[in-house]
Amino acid sequence: MRILGVDPGLTRCGLGVVDVIGRKATLVSVEVAATPSTWETPTRLAAIADALEAAIALHKPEAIALERVFAQNNVRTVMGTAQASGVVMLAAERAGLTVNLYTPSEVKAAVTGDGRAVKSQVGFMVAKILGLAEPPKPADAADALAIAITHGWRGRAQGAATSAQERWVAAERAARRR
Amino acid sequence: MRILGVDPGLTRCGLGVVDVIGRKATLVSVEVAATPSTWETPTRLAAIADALEAAIALHKPEAIALERVFAQNNVRTVMGTAQASGVVMLAAERAGLTVNLYTPSEVKAAVTGDGRAVKSQVGFMVAKILGLAEPPKPADAADALAIAITHGWRGRAQGAATSAQERWVAAERAARRR
Repeated sequence: MRILGVDPGLTRCGLGVVDVIGRKATLVSVEVAATPSTWETPTRLAAIADALEAAIALHKPEAIALERVFAQNNVRTVMGTAQASGVVMLAAERAGLTVNLYTPSEVKAAVTGDGRAVKSQVGFMVAKILGLAEPPKPADAADALAIAITHGWRGRAQGAATSAQERWVAAERAARRR
Repeated sequence: MRILGVDPGLTRCGLGVVDVIGRKATLVSVEVAATPSTWETPTRLAAIADALEAAIALHKPEAIALERVFAQNNVRTVMGTAQASGVVMLAAERAGLTVNLYTPSEVKAAVTGDGRAVKSQVGFMVAKILGLAEPPKPADAADALAIAITHGWRGRAQGAATSAQERWVAAERAARRR
């Protein structure tokens, strides 16, 4: 299954594409759509939509996985993040792709086993899972890949559970309770 | 000058088109793009984008005026409102239209002279300004028209000030200080 993971943001929007078969995940593409803060918001949103639509056209993902935005996060950046996520949802809907939302703690639990893992742990585990020499930079790139991996593994977890999957499901449940 | 005013929202998105010449404002069109809460957010956002793009194609506005969304508003609805506003900004940018943002108090001050006016006052004044028999319903429709009128008058206010304009500018400044 090919999944496009998106870490939404106005300044840096991570776009990561992975192929997931069973527990095996392979890197297809990763990029960060960055727009300068000197640009007007509509222009920044159009640049993000352009990058996303290009990635969908090029890589033909079967699903979109997107980080869920919470209003209780940093108030100064949350509005821009919400606007970017709206644009991502629109592009996905118009491309006929379902949007699957994951909270940051669900993503952390899925790739590291700890819903409260720090950014560097997520980058480390994304590199390990995808067989990369080092964590993808910047963090938005690693996060986008982690979100895509989370969705790929979650789909798999709906089948027969293995021991590793059981540990992951337990970690995820624990993260939800926090 | 033809202006499309937008009161962004996921449940009800007001779209009001007015022609403004000097202080005279004329109603061209008003509608509310409503989507049920049972729909997935991406589907709701696409419905809003469809309605907005249709209004732009049909009425050919020269500018978009949009209510500015604040994170300190109702946290339960603000994320959806921000996502809707992102979709509105994207559609405007892609249509080559500038997006002009106004705070609720700027809009209230412009149409009623009081930045803290209640909803019913805004509806009453929108009806009076546009020569309508009664306030447009629902409130989202009246708000969208009020936002469009605000932008039309603001552009005019950059020229020679009349007595009425001076009162409006003073009221607006007072609203900003609050």
